[in-house]
Amino acid sequence: MNNSSQAQQATVPIVITPEALLEHWQGHRRLTRRLIEAFPEDKLFSYSVGGMRPFSELVMEFLGMAVPGITGVVTGNWQKVDEMPHHSRKNVPTTKKELLGRWDEATEEINALWPQIPSHRFQENDKAFGQWDGPVYFFIFYWIDNEIHHRGQAYVYLRSLGIEPPAFWDRT
Amino acid sequence: MNNSSQAQQATVPIVITPEALLEHWQGHRRLTRRLIEAFPEDKLFSYSVGGMRPFSELVMEFLGMAVPGITGVVTGNWQKVDEMPHHSRKNVPTTKKELLGRWDEATEEINALWPQIPSHRFQENDKAFGQWDGPVYFFIFYWIDNEIHHRGQAYVYLRSLGIEPPAFWDRT
Repeated sequence: MNNSSQAQQATVPIVITPEALLEHWQGHRRLTRRLIEAFPEDKLFSYSVGGMRPFSELVMEFLGMAVPGITGVVTGNWQKVDEMPHHSRKNVPTTKKELLGRWDEATEEINALWPQIPSHRFQENDKAFGQWDGPVYFFIFYWIDNEIHHRGQAYVYLRSLGIEPPAFWDRT
Repeated sequence: MNNSSQAQQATVPIVITPEALLEHWQGHRRLTRRLIEAFPEDKLFSYSVGGMRPFSELVMEFLGMAVPGITGVVTGNWQKVDEMPHHSRKNVPTTKKELLGRWDEATEEINALWPQIPSHRFQENDKAFGQWDGPVYFFIFYWIDNEIHHRGQAYVYLRSLGIEPPAFWDRT
């Protein structure tokens, strides 16, 4: 790190640390896991409101962004968009158990990759998945926000099935 | 600021600056505004799926957290929970135009308040609205996330009404 970037860091307030952002994301991911568990097996793969995708397909989108995304953040090498599992539709889980297994694998991989993110990367510009230009923090926030957004959709699916969803505020 | 907190700041990577977090939130708020506009007037105040609240009530919740929340962040003085408009149900808008007017007022107020947040506040612990303990950054993220979460619900409402919602990725 050169002196000018050190000087910049000394004057910018700390909004959130990398460690806290990981915990923030994993807290959301624990909630998403509870949503997966709350769905009846068949509804997870088939139920829809308003012609939108079943929750299992949304979960595959989250998984397609998470580990491949953080790998891109760490290495600067990005999987191409058409290689993302929810686009290629290869190796798609067909049971809740298998989907939860994939989720838990991703949890461990994210935890392993995150501390390898070079300090300067959050503020660096890159092209996510070879397609989207922006600063790296923006990509990470996008993946988290996209999960929150589509999970909100799954809350409606559960309510319309007469199932009480897990509390939004509980991230334990 | 004392020397030890300066030293801490010099070694913690910048994930996101306060200015970028404001832009991130206002980008989400611009999208939420487009969702309000996309609802037919009557459906905004009445339409529900699965017994959930109409979108207008969710928007009042966002407004009840936003300016009162940032005021608490800036000053350390918090409105009590039962004084929040979506709890007291006082002065609730009854037209889309009035709701959008409230939204735009809050946009300006947030922009005016945000630069007044003392640098140390993001990492400081406080009790939001006299009730929730945690670091200030966590509260701010919670308000943004809560808006994304419930707005995702409104996407389902629009789709089930046969209305194409605004694109999630567009924050212009």
